[in-house]
Amino acid sequence: MLKKDKGLLIVLSGPAGVGKGTVCNALRGVNDRISYSVSATTRSPREGEQEGVNYFYKTKEVFEEMIANDELLEWAKYVDNYYGTPLHYVKEQLREGQDIILEIEVQGAAKVKEKYPDGVFIFLAPPNLDELRKRIEGRGTEDSDLINQRMNVAKAEIEMMAQYDYVVENDQVDNAVSKVQTIIDAEHLRQERVIDYYRNLVEGSE
Amino acid sequence: MLKKDKGLLIVLSGPAGVGKGTVCNALRGVNDRISYSVSATTRSPREGEQEGVNYFYKTKEVFEEMIANDELLEWAKYVDNYYGTPLHYVKEQLREGQDIILEIEVQGAAKVKEKYPDGVFIFLAPPNLDELRKRIEGRGTEDSDLINQRMNVAKAEIEMMAQYDYVVENDQVDNAVSKVQTIIDAEHLRQERVIDYYRNLVEGSE
Repeated sequence: MLKKDKGLLIVLSGPAGVGKGTVCNALRGVNDRISYSVSATTRSPREGEQEGVNYFYKTKEVFEEMIANDELLEWAKYVDNYYGTPLHYVKEQLREGQDIILEIEVQGAAKVKEKYPDGVFIFLAPPNLDELRKRIEGRGTEDSDLINQRMNVAKAEIEMMAQYDYVVENDQVDNAVSKVQTIIDAEHLRQERVIDYYRNLVEGSE
Repeated sequence: MLKKDKGLLIVLSGPAGVGKGTVCNALRGVNDRISYSVSATTRSPREGEQEGVNYFYKTKEVFEEMIANDELLEWAKYVDNYYGTPLHYVKEQLREGQDIILEIEVQGAAKVKEKYPDGVFIFLAPPNLDELRKRIEGRGTEDSDLINQRMNVAKAEIEMMAQYDYVVENDQVDNAVSKVQTIIDAEHLRQERVIDYYRNLVEGSE
């Protein structure tokens, strides 16, 4: 197959606990053509972890320099350690035509979108929005405080959703993985991703 | 499965002779959830043709009234007969959540895009752009007039492409059908097509 476009940056995000990691790992099992982004961190390597495979290990000073130099697609600090996605590493892979997937929290995804709007932003949604609907329809049969509480969570989730290109409900991991795969396949067929290939083909000949 | 959005209007177009009809018929064989748009025409019904199945048969006066009243998504005149797509019929099916596919010439597709920009516009590309590349790479081994002529055709095709959402190369009918199907599946997962469903769900409960 001809390599017609650069790789896709696929950003899989969604509310905490929705199963992003599970879906991402399952996708890894069925699609070996996708790279998984390697993060930089100031955390110490654990037994068996490898530089450039699990993480790029950096000192605090180096990491803060990377932040200052805008060398990270996104970053966050958890429990005194920095974690972030090196822009250079991602861009290099994309340029080589390699798809790369980033599994990331909603706040990080928003930052990535600012820096790389060409990414494919997939929101993994909890399946309980459908359950919620059923409860609403059978209103009166359940504690209304509980319904209201769920409703507020659902509202917040829907407003997160608006920043994404696609919504995939994680009702079953296999279904969700197959939908993510379908999205990746379709995105490779998007006109704006392939037209330059055709244009270069024709113009390179003059 | 829940019906989360209205149907998709899928417009399959491309240069003359690229195989739009073949791909469309093959798609019909594997996907029975897609409706095929029924055109209106002033042509007389042929033996065995049925009103509302093959065409909606109209008199010239009625058809011209439909044009005047802007009741057609697109229309054209071939050999003294009008052909066109009734807007009302298409909108009704979409509202019912029915996907509908329109196999149409490039000029017609451009008109549809003006009236219904939410459609999914797929450009079926001839596979010979790849062949062309090979010939360019082996330049000098073939008549350069022929190469230039093909190049001009290719350039015109690429500029048509720019108006579409997706490009599918019709290298083999089965491949092309499967790509069109992938695009349809992915489009149903697009955030802007499903978010209103979620919003209504939550807001309908207040």
